Amino acid sequence: MIYLTRVYEFAASHRLYNPELTESENSEIYGKCANRNGHGHDYLLEVTVKGTPDARTGMLIDMALLDQAVEERLLQFVDHKHLNFDVPFLEGINPSAENLVVAFWNEVEPAIPGPASLYRLRLRETSKNICEYFG
Amino acid sequence: MIYLTRVYEFAASHRLYNPELTESENSEIYGKCANRNGHGHDYLLEVTVKGTPDARTGMLIDMALLDQAVEERLLQFVDHKHLNFDVPFLEGINPSAENLVVAFWNEVEPAIPGPASLYRLRLRETSKNICEYFG
Amino acid sequence: MIYLTRVYEFAASHRLYNPELTESENSEIYGKCANRNGHGHDYLLEVTVKGTPDARTGMLIDMALLDQAVEERLLQFVDHKHLNFDVPFLEGINPSAENLVVAFWNEVEPAIPGPASLYRLRLRETSKNICEYFG
Amino acid sequence: MIYLTRVYEFAASHRLYNPELTESENSEIYGKCANRNGHGHDYLLEVTVKGTPDARTGMLIDMALLDQAVEERLLQFVDHKHLNFDVPFLEGINPSAENLVVAFWNEVEPAIPGPASLYRLRLRETSKNICEYFG
Amino acid sequence: MIYLTRVYEFAASHRLYNPELTESENSEIYGKCANRNGHGHDYLLEVTVKGTPDARTGMLIDMALLDQAVEERLLQFVDHKHLNFDVPFLEGINPSAENLVVAFWNEVEPAIPGPASLYRLRLRETSKNICEYFG
Amino acid sequence: MIYLTRVYEFAASHRLYNPELTESENSEIYGKCANRNGHGHDYLLEVTVKGTPDARTGMLIDMALLDQAVEERLLQFVDHKHLNFDVPFLEGINPSAENLVVAFWNEVEPAIPGPASLYRLRLRETSKNICEYFG
Repeated sequence: MIYLTRVYEFAASHRLYNPELTESENSEIYGKCANRNGHGHDYLLEVTVKGTPDARTGMLIDMALLDQAVEERLLQFVDHKHLNFDVPFLEGINPSAENLVVAFWNEVEPAIPGPASLYRLRLRETSKNICEYFG
Repeated sequence: MIYLTRVYEFAASHRLYNPELTESENSEIYGKCANRNGHGHDYLLEVTVKGTPDARTGMLIDMALLDQAVEERLLQFVDHKHLNFDVPFLEGINPSAENLVVAFWNEVEPAIPGPASLYRLRLRETSKNICEYFG
Repeated sequence: MIYLTRVYEFAASHRLYNPELTESENSEIYGKCANRNGHGHDYLLEVTVKGTPDARTGMLIDMALLDQAVEERLLQFVDHKHLNFDVPFLEGINPSAENLVVAFWNEVEPAIPGPASLYRLRLRETSKNICEYFG
Repeated sequence: MIYLTRVYEFAASHRLYNPELTESENSEIYGKCANRNGHGHDYLLEVTVKGTPDARTGMLIDMALLDQAVEERLLQFVDHKHLNFDVPFLEGINPSAENLVVAFWNEVEPAIPGPASLYRLRLRETSKNICEYFG
Repeated sequence: MIYLTRVYEFAASHRLYNPELTESENSEIYGKCANRNGHGHDYLLEVTVKGTPDARTGMLIDMALLDQAVEERLLQFVDHKHLNFDVPFLEGINPSAENLVVAFWNEVEPAIPGPASLYRLRLRETSKNICEYFG
Repeated sequence: MIYLTRVYEFAASHRLYNPELTESENSEIYGKCANRNGHGHDYLLEVTVKGTPDARTGMLIDMALLDQAVEERLLQFVDHKHLNFDVPFLEGINPSAENLVVAFWNEVEPAIPGPASLYRLRLRETSKNICEYFG
């Protein structure tokens, strides 16, 4: 079993905010992450797939197809966007790193070209803040 | 002459947009950076001061005072903020990296504790995009 | 299950030395790491917690509380300190990266705010030397 | 159980090419990686061993012995070499990252000084492309 | 005056070798860099331009045009290529980092879209080896 | 004119302390950097030389000779050492980054193999603290 990781970057805005809570509750829970006009990050997304390399090609996956899947299902929707307003598959989701990594899994996992399968998503929000999900 | 660099981080949103231009002009000039709801970055700011170390202390500058100056004049206004809407000293300024680094210089330079003087600001917007200003 | 990692830094001195061994045994086993006056590192500590994000907040853990726990139980005792002499919870412990990561676990684990739980500590001693412990 | 990782670097050339396929098949499968005269990388190899630290030394493994094993079994054969032509243990192997990490495991694993055992090899081909193998 | 830096990556092979010298002279001068079948690197190229930002756009240069110039004049010729054999503008040039950075300048400088001008090329061959040229 | 930079690492202890000042003055000036038993860093030293590449070799300097000069004049004295106690050429010098980079220049500069000359030393004490000297 081989694990192959590709690294992608995107820049996006977000605001941690639950509309079912009051302003002061939001402020207490999320601190400056709840500031009204949002803030942003240079997100780094590591996509790890696992499987057995193809005997003929020596490759686990056609990387061009993996890149295309991540671009078409994910990056085109989030890069240079506001995660609270612009992304169809994030509607109604508070874009914490925890919620993002699960929502990203749901979008990307069905598009991974087999026989490789998605093993892990790792989302780096800042150099000091990283979230992982294994499905 | 010694050059001392301190590195600071802040997360912010921005949108490249000139209100004196039409929507399509903005879109043509700034591409996805002009998307309506903005996007964001994990900005890295390197502040370089120069001078002669104090003979008694062996230090060019009291770093606690430098950190305080950068925090009070700059970071508290931009960290977890939207650079188009939330920052008094950026009012009317299109927050490109080029414009930001000059505006930041104007805020920070007068607050550098002497006899050290500000030599350079280096603003990293993404891992592939860096802007420098020497005053 | 989500895994969230926070990254902390501290600067410290240490010396690899077992007082129950002779000087030449220490020197043979630890090489230059046993030099009499010690040396130091910019340690990087990655703290990974796991759990299920809270449905209301979308967060696995209150990061301010996690930071406070790591600061109060760990960082205040080791940052800008000598690990052989200055740290109560390291008394009698030879501060190899292997021993440090276990001792750190014992200090931090009970202080992790539930329902999240500590999953992994990862201690980077140098850019080429990393130690991990899962409890 | 402690996991200790050492990081090694080597610079090498390779070409993705299966001689049992036609030129156009190779070109279709591997794209620019099949260019006739090859290309190269600054490979980063992370070697992770696991085990219980020795009670007397506080160390999981004698790092000098680990470094020597990796140098003698691996690095001397691949550093500043062409992976398709120069490496005895890669003869007949198409040097994709997937195949390399398995071939490296087979060379290094028997040479790890006990009682520690090899846990993982992680080969970084570029900053965006990483392959892992756990045996 | 603002300095803007864009960072590009390419993977390539090279061999340090002067055909006017004997094999043993080459080997003595270049060591393992003269190995017959070459080796390779993940080169990092930083392109720094300088100038005054446009008052209307707030930008020093149209980054899409800069990226296009570097791609068309440079990257398409060197990425996934062998620098001794595959690159027309390197014919007869021994591809040391010193020679590469000058040859790259000659290709890229005339293509920089004005009024910005090329200020510096910085070529990172390995994490420990960097070459700069200012024209 | 070409500028070539080599990067070196060393791990060392130090304490910021001026024996001509009182304990409380030292504590006020240097804060936790004056803690009695010292602390340490993974120092990164960038050595930049400048000159014209040799026409025959295409190289600015024989890197093996540069490495040897830095090792013999500098690294062997500071790596895994305590900068306040163990280094002959630092006797009587308070080992702030500012003082270190000047002292290092004085040791290394005369040993640079000509016709290249030393252009800059850059000492990274932590990821947020960097000192440069140009002689």
